[in-house]
Amino acid sequence: MGRDALVFYSSVDSAEEWRQALANELPDLDFRLDPEVGDPSEVHYVLAWTPPDGFFSRFPNLKLVTNLGAGVDRLVNRDDLVPVHFSRLNDPGMVAMMTSYVVFAVTRYARDMHVFERAKRRGEWEYVHPRPLADIKVGVLGLGELGAPAAAMLAQMGYAVSGWSRSSKAIPGVRSLTGREGLETILSESEILVSLIPLTRQSHGLLGAAELALMPKGAKFINASRGPVVDEVALIAALTSGAIAEATLDVFNVEPLPPGHPFWALDNVFITPHMASITVPALAARDVAESIRRVRAGRPPLHEIDPARGY
Amino acid sequence: MGRDALVFYSSVDSAEEWRQALANELPDLDFRLDPEVGDPSEVHYVLAWTPPDGFFSRFPNLKLVTNLGAGVDRLVNRDDLVPVHFSRLNDPGMVAMMTSYVVFAVTRYARDMHVFERAKRRGEWEYVHPRPLADIKVGVLGLGELGAPAAAMLAQMGYAVSGWSRSSKAIPGVRSLTGREGLETILSESEILVSLIPLTRQSHGLLGAAELALMPKGAKFINASRGPVVDEVALIAALTSGAIAEATLDVFNVEPLPPGHPFWALDNVFITPHMASITVPALAARDVAESIRRVRAGRPPLHEIDPARGY
Repeated sequence: MGRDALVFYSSVDSAEEWRQALANELPDLDFRLDPEVGDPSEVHYVLAWTPPDGFFSRFPNLKLVTNLGAGVDRLVNRDDLVPVHFSRLNDPGMVAMMTSYVVFAVTRYARDMHVFERAKRRGEWEYVHPRPLADIKVGVLGLGELGAPAAAMLAQMGYAVSGWSRSSKAIPGVRSLTGREGLETILSESEILVSLIPLTRQSHGLLGAAELALMPKGAKFINASRGPVVDEVALIAALTSGAIAEATLDVFNVEPLPPGHPFWALDNVFITPHMASITVPALAARDVAESIRRVRAGRPPLHEIDPARGY
Repeated sequence: MGRDALVFYSSVDSAEEWRQALANELPDLDFRLDPEVGDPSEVHYVLAWTPPDGFFSRFPNLKLVTNLGAGVDRLVNRDDLVPVHFSRLNDPGMVAMMTSYVVFAVTRYARDMHVFERAKRRGEWEYVHPRPLADIKVGVLGLGELGAPAAAMLAQMGYAVSGWSRSSKAIPGVRSLTGREGLETILSESEILVSLIPLTRQSHGLLGAAELALMPKGAKFINASRGPVVDEVALIAALTSGAIAEATLDVFNVEPLPPGHPFWALDNVFITPHMASITVPALAARDVAESIRRVRAGRPPLHEIDPARGY
């Protein structure tokens, strides 16, 4: 039997952390860091984030490509994919991080913290009487492996939570909405709206000027999924007019957000540098290893994705 | 049988909301708003926040005093108390609010949001690689009816949580510490320390210069209980030197925090106007009514406090 090799490619993840984490799980796996890939015919697995064009076809015996992230939009829209299994990362650390980001951003608005931040800078004690959390309507777009736990946690904290997703989801304390009608309902009712929707052909530009106009006057918008889900020009217009009062944005059409971009000058926009959720190799490696074991045994991997479907 | 009256006194709570909420629970209760107290001999219950000196002795047939808040330090240290039952408020809305405040304040530091706030004001994309929540040590001082749920939620979110209280507490995911040794342990280990400790004779000045000096260099401090639990002069010194890197303060020795107070000028201090947790009458009235029913039946009220003990 020949060598059983995995090739790692990423300009943002730590190869060394991944080498160690996978060695703990699969001591017999041959971990190779691009460009030192050795004999291409021994490469059966690729673990990669946005590898260059033509990367996959270099390996004639490839069986599994695992995307080094939960969002697969940078993978599924490529035109150089090969007919193998595709999967994406999912790890509990990533879920906990995203949930913490969403809970922070929602609570910042729900508890008027953005008002107190500004009052502090002016040196003023400005009291705002708190509203019961149960009266505050929060909408979550996208109830997938990151959206569902975040929505569940918001509900557990006491917010009035609605969620919108392609198919109906049963999450304790979360009202489930679907379809175009459900989208219009959640947009028109949510005081605080969170996008956790993956970027697909269908969700590209999902929130345009017409959709943003449905939101209640003075609503708050949080985007922790992908920039192109929302029309940035329409969002800037709504934030400038005050139709949307506040936004917290972790993702953008262009990242890093360029100096001089209009978002920087808007005092009602909080910008974070695409850090809402990242992979923790020690935790994520368990599922990556299990997927390799399954593919070795001729079965599909965990967290499989269908590039044609887009997720 | 004579009238069964309650007298309400507060300069900050809505008497009308309380009148309505109690009428829903106890239609036969005679709700009287100070100073329109009618025949003092008919007053069996007082529901009050910081009434004037000598207030209680005006009612010869008083049976129960309920403090309009969870913190009873403004009540138990009075020298005009009468020998009746004393209780305090507890309502689920208040618990949810405090938990949301604590989760917000801890997560703001844990996810480096304070760094991104400053980067936004400079118009700069400053990336900080996130740390797994499980690696971040959070300490909670006080595991009472507000502290315990907050600590439990932090643990559920994935933080490494320790709690300190008078007696040992079993809270899932929370390491329980007690005594002076436990205090020194939690102070020296916590990257983010939250005070939810009630103000008593014992806790007054609990966190002085010596205690703050035990905290790890660069630690963050959050006070959502009462100002005098911490020595403000020592805290200002630690925040100025950077020994303590950041603080979020909802409570102060003097409230509202006076203009020109040193905290206002410190960029590493986030100030909120004592709003971490407030009472929601519609929810809190249930327990107040149940306490009245119990006292009518000769039993002790819910959430009873012992003024001599201080809580």
